[in-house]
Amino acid sequence: MKNLNYDTDDLIAALATPWGESALAVIRTSGKNCIDAVASVFDSSKKMKNAGANTLVKGYIIEPDTGLRVDEVVAGIYRNPKSYTGEDLVEIYTHGSLPGIRAVLSVLGKAGFRNAGPGEFTLRAFLNKKMDLTKAEAVHEIITAKSVKAQSLAMARLSGNVFDKINSIKYSLSDILASVELQLDYAEDEDDPGAGIDISSLKESRQKLEKLASTYRIGRLYQDGIKIVLAGRTNAGKSALFNLFLKEDRSIVSDYHGTTRDFIESFISINGVPVVLFDTAGIRDADHPVEAEGIKRSAQVIDSADIIIYLVDSCKGLCGEDKELLNLYKHKEVIKLWNKIDICRKDPPEGFIPVSSFTGEGFSDLENIVLEKTLGAGFISITDDAVIDSERQKIHIDNAVSALLEAEKSAENNISLDLIAPDIKDAMDNLGEITGEITSADILNNMFSRFCVGK
Amino acid sequence: MKNLNYDTDDLIAALATPWGESALAVIRTSGKNCIDAVASVFDSSKKMKNAGANTLVKGYIIEPDTGLRVDEVVAGIYRNPKSYTGEDLVEIYTHGSLPGIRAVLSVLGKAGFRNAGPGEFTLRAFLNKKMDLTKAEAVHEIITAKSVKAQSLAMARLSGNVFDKINSIKYSLSDILASVELQLDYAEDEDDPGAGIDISSLKESRQKLEKLASTYRIGRLYQDGIKIVLAGRTNAGKSALFNLFLKEDRSIVSDYHGTTRDFIESFISINGVPVVLFDTAGIRDADHPVEAEGIKRSAQVIDSADIIIYLVDSCKGLCGEDKELLNLYKHKEVIKLWNKIDICRKDPPEGFIPVSSFTGEGFSDLENIVLEKTLGAGFISITDDAVIDSERQKIHIDNAVSALLEAEKSAENNISLDLIAPDIKDAMDNLGEITGEITSADILNNMFSRFCVGK
Repeated sequence: MKNLNYDTDDLIAALATPWGESALAVIRTSGKNCIDAVASVFDSSKKMKNAGANTLVKGYIIEPDTGLRVDEVVAGIYRNPKSYTGEDLVEIYTHGSLPGIRAVLSVLGKAGFRNAGPGEFTLRAFLNKKMDLTKAEAVHEIITAKSVKAQSLAMARLSGNVFDKINSIKYSLSDILASVELQLDYAEDEDDPGAGIDISSLKESRQKLEKLASTYRIGRLYQDGIKIVLAGRTNAGKSALFNLFLKEDRSIVSDYHGTTRDFIESFISINGVPVVLFDTAGIRDADHPVEAEGIKRSAQVIDSADIIIYLVDSCKGLCGEDKELLNLYKHKEVIKLWNKIDICRKDPPEGFIPVSSFTGEGFSDLENIVLEKTLGAGFISITDDAVIDSERQKIHIDNAVSALLEAEKSAENNISLDLIAPDIKDAMDNLGEITGEITSADILNNMFSRFCVGK
Repeated sequence: MKNLNYDTDDLIAALATPWGESALAVIRTSGKNCIDAVASVFDSSKKMKNAGANTLVKGYIIEPDTGLRVDEVVAGIYRNPKSYTGEDLVEIYTHGSLPGIRAVLSVLGKAGFRNAGPGEFTLRAFLNKKMDLTKAEAVHEIITAKSVKAQSLAMARLSGNVFDKINSIKYSLSDILASVELQLDYAEDEDDPGAGIDISSLKESRQKLEKLASTYRIGRLYQDGIKIVLAGRTNAGKSALFNLFLKEDRSIVSDYHGTTRDFIESFISINGVPVVLFDTAGIRDADHPVEAEGIKRSAQVIDSADIIIYLVDSCKGLCGEDKELLNLYKHKEVIKLWNKIDICRKDPPEGFIPVSSFTGEGFSDLENIVLEKTLGAGFISITDDAVIDSERQKIHIDNAVSALLEAEKSAENNISLDLIAPDIKDAMDNLGEITGEITSADILNNMFSRFCVGK
């Protein structure tokens, strides 16, 4: 493909594992004649050149200028087209030594390899038709998944459930279009108006797409995490609840960089659903300028929350300030807690959930409410169904839905078939862009630049 | 071997790459029937079971309870004895996804694997005679090497240069011992006093061992780094020189945690030799308690330095305080710099090296002097010769040298051969402990517990 940032003829190499001291590191190389190129800096050169596909070869990487052994490695040999990229590919399993990794990469540079850019291996996999774009995006989503559930949803996409769904809808649409075009051809010759258009089939495709589009919100929640902010007056028990969520003792001081008067955040998981949890500054007299700044930032965090958990100290009861703040948050999703029931056994006001952030009483109820509020029915229904979390895919699905709605409207109004056909074609093109059947260099550059290097 | 902390009959598994989001992660598994055990949670189970040695098999790791695909992986199959551990071994190349890695490790737990302890794979390699102890230690040294040179010295040890040297000396000693024992047997029957002992050969072995022992200091310097401390009065240009060493702009504030009145340190490399560089607080009036504390700590750092670089501002000249401090450091290795020659072109006092920490003039001279002072002739002579950096090896070599010196003394004093033989035997035993021919569970537990997990 032309105008790509990456030259696909180059030999590329990259560290595919994190940079750090460890037992093993993997350096991935790919490109035409990649095996010969690696063999040129390998002591058992012939053995590597003659190695069969999907075999492991042991030997030493040799510094070509000095002839010295750089590292003892095992090389995984993959031959075109049976490799991740669809090209000849060698994975070098080295010791996880920082100077050693640098030295091997430097030797590969001398053997003609350049450093691979982000996502460049997966880009080549796409260009060589080893995977469509929904699977390529799933690779990125698997790596960056923050919870087991997000990882397994992405895993299902990598296995092709989004691709299959999109493709089956596209085939339905192409059937409809074929029938329309046949009728248009036929109409030129004869006066028979034909069977018209299969509106119910059109509708069915559109509804399937709408259902898929509706999974986006849940897909993103699983990928990014639900943003929960703990709010309430000073000493309402926010930090104790925060610690309860963390199931470990963490003090504000050790966590926040610089001042205890700001918010702190932590990444946790509730039943496999990732949650970003924020503890905000108590609402206090803001005489002190640092404190005022902290409260201002807390307000911003509260504003961007998916859920606010508002704590009231049941011993002190619901005061005017609480009511004021709850009124302030009324446009948001708020869970109201009646805290410290272990000390003060007063009945909660309406809509308040009794908990003790000290003993943990009521905590599992709270967790379930959090999941229900955010994932709703989706929390229950996600099983093997395709769930998308790519904004790009969402946009194309929405475009396709709009085009199909337009086509339906036209069909219902008996508008001429030759005016409906372009809308169906438009919907199909959008679906083609999702899988990458139709795509542009810009889209690819943009998509793969988000990937990590070595993938 | 009995009494080892590790049960060598278990199936073991561990993440062998650093913990982090990345393109790939490697999970290493080993043990008897390891391939069948991994195959039990692998979708292409039969393919894996029947896979040849040193081959790659692609498939999915399956959660046994749910039947769900956990991750798409490639498995590297190694069959006993041709593997790192000498057992059946499977390396699982997974996506570098944090929940994904956790999930695969959890599935392996269900398949009968326990988490491997530090160095447990290498311990098995040793116990299964895949490598001697000098090579096993070299594996650890390669991974923790801080510079290319340290890594390549360890690489040479892994290739066996220390093992070969120790073994060849041991063979010489065993020849001497055999001849001694033959004469002792013979002496019982006849009155011929025999040829005596080959003292020159004994001496030669001892000298070889002494030479090897003498490489320890250099080996440690390469592994740990040379500790250089910059000292001098306030505004002598210490921080500018520090930055020059770092070849990047680093401010004290961004580097040190808490106060700018203490020392800062950084790891750098001079011609491949690792250096830990310290910048100390200027010597000032210590009225302020924080400052006084900083100066006290600086003094401790100076005390532990391999080299002190003492800077004098040539514009201000050598003052009484400088002379006092230099006198204080006279028992240390000190390099004296006549700094700021770009501003004040005054001739340096005797023994001072003219430099400009601003323009970099004289800096490469300084670097060479640092290397010569610390590595001495060793800096030049380290080529392919064996260099040790293991304290354990050093102690055994020293013990062997002592025993051989004792044997030489006895031989020179014509002491009876049956009293000399035990000393030679003692030396040989010490050499045997270096390679692990003779060893105890305690030593192994201690040695391998320093390794990283997955190795």
